[in-house]
Amino acid sequence: MRPLAAAFACALSCTVLTAAAAEPAPPTLADVLAASTADDWRRPDPENTLYMRIPGGTVVIELAPRFSPAHVANIRALARAHYWDGLAILRVQDNYVAQWGDPDAEKPARRRSLGQAKAKLPAEFEREAAGSGFHAIDSRDAYAPQVGFLDGFPAASDPARGKVWMAHCYGLVGAGRDNAADSSNGAELYAVIGHAPRHLDRNITPVGRVLLGMELLSSLPRGPAPMGFYTDPAQRTPIATLRLASDVPESERLPVEVLRTGTPTFERLVQARRERHEEWFVDPVGRIELCNVPVPVRLAR
Amino acid sequence: MRPLAAAFACALSCTVLTAAAAEPAPPTLADVLAASTADDWRRPDPENTLYMRIPGGTVVIELAPRFSPAHVANIRALARAHYWDGLAILRVQDNYVAQWGDPDAEKPARRRSLGQAKAKLPAEFEREAAGSGFHAIDSRDAYAPQVGFLDGFPAASDPARGKVWMAHCYGLVGAGRDNAADSSNGAELYAVIGHAPRHLDRNITPVGRVLLGMELLSSLPRGPAPMGFYTDPAQRTPIATLRLASDVPESERLPVEVLRTGTPTFERLVQARRERHEEWFVDPVGRIELCNVPVPVRLAR
Repeated sequence: MRPLAAAFACALSCTVLTAAAAEPAPPTLADVLAASTADDWRRPDPENTLYMRIPGGTVVIELAPRFSPAHVANIRALARAHYWDGLAILRVQDNYVAQWGDPDAEKPARRRSLGQAKAKLPAEFEREAAGSGFHAIDSRDAYAPQVGFLDGFPAASDPARGKVWMAHCYGLVGAGRDNAADSSNGAELYAVIGHAPRHLDRNITPVGRVLLGMELLSSLPRGPAPMGFYTDPAQRTPIATLRLASDVPESERLPVEVLRTGTPTFERLVQARRERHEEWFVDPVGRIELCNVPVPVRLAR
Repeated sequence: MRPLAAAFACALSCTVLTAAAAEPAPPTLADVLAASTADDWRRPDPENTLYMRIPGGTVVIELAPRFSPAHVANIRALARAHYWDGLAILRVQDNYVAQWGDPDAEKPARRRSLGQAKAKLPAEFEREAAGSGFHAIDSRDAYAPQVGFLDGFPAASDPARGKVWMAHCYGLVGAGRDNAADSSNGAELYAVIGHAPRHLDRNITPVGRVLLGMELLSSLPRGPAPMGFYTDPAQRTPIATLRLASDVPESERLPVEVLRTGTPTFERLVQARRERHEEWFVDPVGRIELCNVPVPVRLAR
């Protein structure tokens, strides 16, 4: 049960190493990350990186242009037009989402102009699996025939239909919509701050995920009205600025690095989360759920 | 896809009702709750109910004495001795747990006395399934052969071994421990504030779940040190009092009611979460994961 401790004990006292004892201890997550090389990490494209500055700090979001190209293009246009500057986080619903946008979006006379961005976009709930780069992990999932990763984002797949889609794990960012499937345009965005609401998969358009600063969103006061809306505008969290990293001077960009998925190192990471060999674990588990696989993020330098 | 809208349209214009159209629309969660009767709800035993008062308000916890009797007995003794009064929430780790207890617990000279409570308890990670009252729901689970509910708590089961255990869903409360399986005594408790860390199942002793006030724990500032510990004691959230409801004057008790599990109403609730018939849903999902089944709580009167 505690292979590391056993290996150390044997190194001190065993005279004959058995085959089993000679095998190295299975790695923990910390071991896998310590053994990673520079090539195991990637720097997200600044064109796909958003910085949202709120009073607590900066939330860094990676966009998923191969998954939802129309929404990502619109979000880029809105960020370039400084659309969100001075808007706010409008609702924080416990164990669900934090959502931001224009509080007057439903009031034609008062809402902020979308500028060059499109008012209407197609729904982008799923895409063709062929050529997507989706790779499955070994996991039994409540919602999907297969789960894994796509461009570094948690995702799911139905091989019978040849489709893949992003999975609503903690930190996923999506585009809020009304009842019509094609009623989102990326101006109103949400981040998942609770247990994965996987029932949203294939019902709404995901656009990316939070890489850094999740704790700034997840620790916001919950709104007292239904769906976590605030009753008093003063309770909202103001957005100072929301920018594409590519529009920020290079000297001000954050050196964010994300562990690549689909590599031997990532395979070892998934296995280290499946079989828990940290000394604390009495039962090494032996199983993993998609949303419990971390995709590590670090700041270089 | 939108059976309610379809049924209304037919009521206005259809001359011949087909068998399918004549069936009532499948209920939503709101429909199930609206149709519930007084008998569908229970009042948790005041002997099993904790009130933890922190600056933001009161966190209400239901204990699970049939699952972890030794820990629950110790927690009752500690609450009766006002053990936690003036102690604090010591760590809040994003997407994981908020944990409270004595910051000096590791310092024999300074730690608070456990009084009549026991310093050492057996691990209570799982129990015999026979006679437990566990009832399964239809769900494919990443971690367990079966999942369902036990005494109103989310739980899992391995019929081959004849065991059941509580599942680490959002709001679960457990007893922190060191590396030894039997190193918890209930003096240090944690609540799950993020995506269900189901790898903790069968590795630690669960003692209950938060019924009300989760948002007071989940919105606390995350601690900056490893594991979410605070670096400055002033950052901790003080616990004013932690009491058993049975030790509070009856006039001051909260009229908390919990929907019974294992009833026809609860079966309908699970089904309403499995098949999403709210108008917003484009895809009705058709699947459910244990930790996405709510066990509703309300205040009577």
